[in-house]
Amino acid sequence: MNAVPISEIYKDDIIVNSSITVCGWIRSRRNSKSGFSFITIYDGSCFYSIQVIANNSLSNYYKEILHLTIGCSVIVTGMLILSLGNQQKYEIQATEIKILGWVENPDTYPISAKKHSIEYLRDVAHLRARTNLIGVIVRIRNHVLQALHYFLQKNNYYWVPTPIITSLNTEGAGAMFRVSTLDMQNIPKNQDGSVDFKKDFFGKESFLTVSGQLNIETYACALSRVYTFGPTFRAENSNTSRHLSEFWMLEVESAFTNLDDMSDFIEHMLKYVFKSLLKNCMPDINFLKNYIDNDIIIRLKKNLCMEFVRIDYLDAINILLNSKIKFEKSVFLGVDLASEHERFLVEKHFKIPVIIKNYPKELKAFYMRLNDDKKTVAAIDLLVPNIGELIGGSQREERLSMLDERLLELGLKKEDYWWYRDLRRYGTVPHSGFGMGFERLISYVTGVSNIRDIIPFPRTVKNSHF
Amino acid sequence: MNAVPISEIYKDDIIVNSSITVCGWIRSRRNSKSGFSFITIYDGSCFYSIQVIANNSLSNYYKEILHLTIGCSVIVTGMLILSLGNQQKYEIQATEIKILGWVENPDTYPISAKKHSIEYLRDVAHLRARTNLIGVIVRIRNHVLQALHYFLQKNNYYWVPTPIITSLNTEGAGAMFRVSTLDMQNIPKNQDGSVDFKKDFFGKESFLTVSGQLNIETYACALSRVYTFGPTFRAENSNTSRHLSEFWMLEVESAFTNLDDMSDFIEHMLKYVFKSLLKNCMPDINFLKNYIDNDIIIRLKKNLCMEFVRIDYLDAINILLNSKIKFEKSVFLGVDLASEHERFLVEKHFKIPVIIKNYPKELKAFYMRLNDDKKTVAAIDLLVPNIGELIGGSQREERLSMLDERLLELGLKKEDYWWYRDLRRYGTVPHSGFGMGFERLISYVTGVSNIRDIIPFPRTVKNSHF
Repeated sequence: MNAVPISEIYKDDIIVNSSITVCGWIRSRRNSKSGFSFITIYDGSCFYSIQVIANNSLSNYYKEILHLTIGCSVIVTGMLILSLGNQQKYEIQATEIKILGWVENPDTYPISAKKHSIEYLRDVAHLRARTNLIGVIVRIRNHVLQALHYFLQKNNYYWVPTPIITSLNTEGAGAMFRVSTLDMQNIPKNQDGSVDFKKDFFGKESFLTVSGQLNIETYACALSRVYTFGPTFRAENSNTSRHLSEFWMLEVESAFTNLDDMSDFIEHMLKYVFKSLLKNCMPDINFLKNYIDNDIIIRLKKNLCMEFVRIDYLDAINILLNSKIKFEKSVFLGVDLASEHERFLVEKHFKIPVIIKNYPKELKAFYMRLNDDKKTVAAIDLLVPNIGELIGGSQREERLSMLDERLLELGLKKEDYWWYRDLRRYGTVPHSGFGMGFERLISYVTGVSNIRDIIPFPRTVKNSHF
Repeated sequence: MNAVPISEIYKDDIIVNSSITVCGWIRSRRNSKSGFSFITIYDGSCFYSIQVIANNSLSNYYKEILHLTIGCSVIVTGMLILSLGNQQKYEIQATEIKILGWVENPDTYPISAKKHSIEYLRDVAHLRARTNLIGVIVRIRNHVLQALHYFLQKNNYYWVPTPIITSLNTEGAGAMFRVSTLDMQNIPKNQDGSVDFKKDFFGKESFLTVSGQLNIETYACALSRVYTFGPTFRAENSNTSRHLSEFWMLEVESAFTNLDDMSDFIEHMLKYVFKSLLKNCMPDINFLKNYIDNDIIIRLKKNLCMEFVRIDYLDAINILLNSKIKFEKSVFLGVDLASEHERFLVEKHFKIPVIIKNYPKELKAFYMRLNDDKKTVAAIDLLVPNIGELIGGSQREERLSMLDERLLELGLKKEDYWWYRDLRRYGTVPHSGFGMGFERLISYVTGVSNIRDIIPFPRTVKNSHF
């Protein structure tokens, strides 16, 4: 089929007054009294649809075209012309409209012309990509991923896949999903009554990954700059607008890099993404501005002009204490910042992304590098307005003796981390990295606040539908 | 740290006779009798290492530099100069060499200078990225992924993530991994003794996906051209060089596309990848030619010049019958082609990639479009030499009545596919797609025959190490 995507028309590459074929779905049909109809066709290739003029001289005008409803699929051939109307630049004067698929019972079509609530659309996740909003999210998500790849590649980072199935719990915490092929009706048991995982597929208890970091460190300690981008899992029973049981995470790891280098890199990376969106995705962003978040353009531009704030955890605590605000969770030196604290800092106090660094070691994972004060670790969290934590990162502990001390303190077994320790035994290097929740980034740049609307088929507690 | 990746040096962008800092690991050290040493440093940013000349005037020459062994990490500052030697274009006359990390007991360093077998390297998967071979694979794998993204984007395809956790078995076959948070010591049971999955995290029995195809069809039937790229799982107990329990798959789906369109697209896509590799990755490819597969360049070039063969399943059977070869599995009309048959066709008979199309419907999944002969379906398999099946695809059955007939024939419940059927009830369109095993593609273009060496941390039966 020699059809062209509608996006090609709006690139102004197609010669006007030439014949063209487009395929797509009906967005609307409006009949003129003068014996013709205006039909708008959408194919998802860009935000815009194309207006088609169907004259009653078309052989199927009365029998078919006048019965077209929203969602029907068609192939339109005709002359591409400049539109005289104000609403659109181009239109197609149809010479043939072939109907590919009707909508069964248009009155009950789940994605009818009326406005649907974003919550309702989750129940028809298989059809919601036909709406403007979800189409916009698809194109922006796609663009952000390409921009991230481009930025990372330009900076000499290589993509490395890390395993999804693992027998390791990177964070030493966090609920995990078990992966098994054991017969649940007949669990094999050891003599002491425990489950005999030696009989399971992998010969030991295995889980879905909560992070690829430890794995990717092995590649950073060989090829310097690497990243992984893939699905990540948390089996936590948290039913919030910011959590998914299955989400995508970008994890970047760089040898010969300290915490400040990494903070700069993060700021450059995000600014590159914002700039790229403003340059390439304006039709989609304008829709979001009009229907979802009036501030979206100002927010992206403001992020571009201003430097991200960098403060120590200690300073953050002082700001919170001096704010005189009564938080639900009280503030003290050593507190694990709660969402209310983070949002105060980033939304009320600074109103711009904030990097908080040097957290008390008790709050962070074993692999983070101990600072010279012996109390804090070289960790950062990047907070952004409306979202809270978008990125968590750290300089990794590259000194074997310090790492072993931390493992001991936390009651973790050295033997379980034998290969991670090897990186410190053989040509160890200072290195740093971070993880960014991809859907949270998309939520931030689109203003779409519930993360269930960012990913096509969200997985949450009691929900693995579709 | 203001170090530059070694790759930047070989782009000829850095001014000769200027000061430069590089970070990396020692590949070799050779002492001259005239009071200096040649040290080669590798940082993984490209195939090449850089030679450093360390003079005995350096303050740590005798105390440290003369003790450097392979794998030690260093920061080198010095003057970038044009080399007088034949082996390299550039070298660095060091003014400072700072040692970051020593190798503990060099005699037992797992990645010592001697040649290691590829099988041995799997046991030290956390260190094997330090070898030339695995570095080459990383860079080629990275390049192929970027080339695929680029090609798809250029052709108006959008990336869409499909879920990993699913309650659906796309193929209606294939062993799956169960995902659960139930306490294996105390499985909750229903009155009839069956497992009470309502108490499980997702409220029903859930698995790791074997394909994102059904999910992505919903987006193709809304936005026309989409693809998904992510980990995919098979719980089959197959211990071959071509199978992984966890592998990455590219799945492409396009509305308004038939089987021939899709076959053309596949050929263009692969040729784009081959061309891009030959243009951008020659240092890495030359290493593979010298050490792994002497034919690699000829093979890629031949694939570029020749059209892929396209034959019907029926013709394939006739070729096999006429070959007079005694296959282990005998050949007859309707046989599910075995690896030996596929390899004969592609390696002995055609010696170029072959697309076999129109398979008997009994051999293929329910969603493939029934041809007019009512016996075959519009399915393709792409076979390539040394690998066998690289891609499987089909035109999808877009006619609801035909789809329902196939579900019934195969004893599948219509209700389980309610949302998939909806795509055929509302504005159905002809559409086609395919899935490509990413690691198999990398195996094909690198000549590295065992897929366990293509992915950093392979998952196979009894193996979820690292």
